Amino acid sequence: MFAVEVRDHVMIAHSFKGDLFGPAQALHGATFVIDAAFIAKTLDKNGVVIDIGRANEVLKEVLTPLNYKNLDDMKEFEGVNTTTEFLTKHVHDHLAQAARDGRLGRSGDELDSIRITISESHVARAWYEAPID
Amino acid sequence: MFAVEVRDHVMIAHSFKGDLFGPAQALHGATFVIDAAFIAKTLDKNGVVIDIGRANEVLKEVLTPLNYKNLDDMKEFEGVNTTTEFLTKHVHDHLAQAARDGRLGRSGDELDSIRITISESHVARAWYEAPID
Amino acid sequence: MFAVEVRDHVMIAHSFKGDLFGPAQALHGATFVIDAAFIAKTLDKNGVVIDIGRANEVLKEVLTPLNYKNLDDMKEFEGVNTTTEFLTKHVHDHLAQAARDGRLGRSGDELDSIRITISESHVARAWYEAPID
Amino acid sequence: MFAVEVRDHVMIAHSFKGDLFGPAQALHGATFVIDAAFIAKTLDKNGVVIDIGRANEVLKEVLTPLNYKNLDDMKEFEGVNTTTEFLTKHVHDHLAQAARDGRLGRSGDELDSIRITISESHVARAWYEAPID
Amino acid sequence: MFAVEVRDHVMIAHSFKGDLFGPAQALHGATFVIDAAFIAKTLDKNGVVIDIGRANEVLKEVLTPLNYKNLDDMKEFEGVNTTTEFLTKHVHDHLAQAARDGRLGRSGDELDSIRITISESHVARAWYEAPID
Amino acid sequence: MFAVEVRDHVMIAHSFKGDLFGPAQALHGATFVIDAAFIAKTLDKNGVVIDIGRANEVLKEVLTPLNYKNLDDMKEFEGVNTTTEFLTKHVHDHLAQAARDGRLGRSGDELDSIRITISESHVARAWYEAPID
Repeated sequence: MFAVEVRDHVMIAHSFKGDLFGPAQALHGATFVIDAAFIAKTLDKNGVVIDIGRANEVLKEVLTPLNYKNLDDMKEFEGVNTTTEFLTKHVHDHLAQAARDGRLGRSGDELDSIRITISESHVARAWYEAPID
Repeated sequence: MFAVEVRDHVMIAHSFKGDLFGPAQALHGATFVIDAAFIAKTLDKNGVVIDIGRANEVLKEVLTPLNYKNLDDMKEFEGVNTTTEFLTKHVHDHLAQAARDGRLGRSGDELDSIRITISESHVARAWYEAPID
Repeated sequence: MFAVEVRDHVMIAHSFKGDLFGPAQALHGATFVIDAAFIAKTLDKNGVVIDIGRANEVLKEVLTPLNYKNLDDMKEFEGVNTTTEFLTKHVHDHLAQAARDGRLGRSGDELDSIRITISESHVARAWYEAPID
Repeated sequence: MFAVEVRDHVMIAHSFKGDLFGPAQALHGATFVIDAAFIAKTLDKNGVVIDIGRANEVLKEVLTPLNYKNLDDMKEFEGVNTTTEFLTKHVHDHLAQAARDGRLGRSGDELDSIRITISESHVARAWYEAPID
Repeated sequence: MFAVEVRDHVMIAHSFKGDLFGPAQALHGATFVIDAAFIAKTLDKNGVVIDIGRANEVLKEVLTPLNYKNLDDMKEFEGVNTTTEFLTKHVHDHLAQAARDGRLGRSGDELDSIRITISESHVARAWYEAPID
Repeated sequence: MFAVEVRDHVMIAHSFKGDLFGPAQALHGATFVIDAAFIAKTLDKNGVVIDIGRANEVLKEVLTPLNYKNLDDMKEFEGVNTTTEFLTKHVHDHLAQAARDGRLGRSGDELDSIRITISESHVARAWYEAPID
């Protein structure tokens, strides 16, 4: 299995609901460094999984609506805790949709899965990996 | 599959038995930077795999008996080479037990597996991944 | 010149005032990874600049009031932009005061300066270095 | 599953054919930082996957023919784009052959698979993982 | 003294003249990860050394003519070895000129010096620091 | 001022004397990742501070006597605490001697100073910088 992985980041505010979160129930924030890995069984005729430039663009499109935002104010996230784990799936699902729509410059059929890793600090991160279809 | 991963470290002395190890047969030491990843099919109702604070505490409990020790002097490790690989499984097994005991703040049944990565330097590391049960 | 440097982090929300900041004028957040370096001409009789455990504790004392906070809500920061650069000096000044108060386990006279580096992402950071007195 | 992973690097020149690559169609270059992970179900009697020193040597043997080269000039790579993805498989296949030949100091039968990760910058990398046989 | 530092990278081909360089006399290449630190005695009225977005843009302007190039073919570098050290000064001098021209969004007079660090691999880097004027 | 910096590591055992050290008074160990920076006002005729290959060799010569050792058993370190800070100066002094002896491939007169940074973990490091003469 081949993969190509690109990195970008967002800087957001949010708060969590639930005793579990202790002081993180207050409004705070995070720099999320996001690694998006596109996974395929074969390389295309150019010798790549997908074009790295295209991967960067599509990842940026998915991240821009989150960047410099208070996630608590976004309709889309009403009633959910926007934990690092939750956001790995959010980014995954948007990139998987881009793959199915053919927006990654290669047919989604030829891609296998996507793995999103989000580092929230130098000592903690989360990831989510799932098939594209 | 979701994962949440936390990082801690220990500073230990040890020696190895076996010609294979060359100069590492002498008493030497290592800083082991340990990443413990908890892997699950679903998030809990709070939107996390497990609470990151709880993950840190339980990892610390497993590491404290090793930290600032000469592993050669520990009964528990008599007759074994405490290689980086060996220690990945040691940490794994203790964390898996904590999961089964419900000490991770979520039922062990809801967790799938644990992956332990130990970096021994900027150029070498080992990992071990296995189901919790 | 000798230095010993320890690392910790905080996760905060804030916003900036000024056209310069573009989208960062909105409420957003950051993980700040803070490196605090204590600099001295000589080692003490134990062979250290200062005890690394003590350094960690004092850094934690300085950071705790910031962690999981919306800096916009803190009286102390009213009317200022809590930029990465600004915060390097904030942390510096509190650690320099701790040095002068003898809370670092070594007389402040024997320390020379403090350098605070704050990484706000994998591609941007700021630092501030100044004498203790 | 256990793994042990070692790191080395090469500094090469190359160019790509295909509109997809934009400016990278011109002769340029890269530092490729290569992580080679050897994966096995069990540890050997010494308590290792394979000897880390041996792993380093064999990886170096595979990388030396590439280091300080213009890959466009190498017969072996005629007519192919030596993308990061392509090179992960190239390194994999040579290490898998070394495993089958018993040159890793442990029978290839006892090893399961090899995973090669190549970082081309601080924001992009590729990997390839496949069974040894 | 305050500093703000931003990171970018280029992927180039080049060769060196001189026995000292051994195999690096052949055409090869490198990924250069460039950290540009802007250093000033004071923050501006916004609380920054210079705007980080502006810093990124100007660094990109300086790096674009190098990216995806064979430096051996550039008139500007005729007869010189484009070593990592040499390139730190090249980038420095162009950024210092931008500072003097007021293109950093703050008067060059208010800035003190610039420090360029170029990492050529995970085990080697070079830097150059000099006043702006 | 120019600098070129190379990285290597050692894995050692040691213990400390003094209440200050708490549990680190017991025999334990560390991986020390050592960055050696050679600093000069000018580049040589080849366009380098010193040859990076030569820098690596001389650093390796200085580190080999420490690697895979229990520092408590070394005559040279009798009666001293081999703290990270202490070792930065130890490495510095040996490299400075190599510079004065002309073993760095450039006259020691043309070099200005040496800075040694030793990382003992992902969250702590020390450094020492001093002129060569």
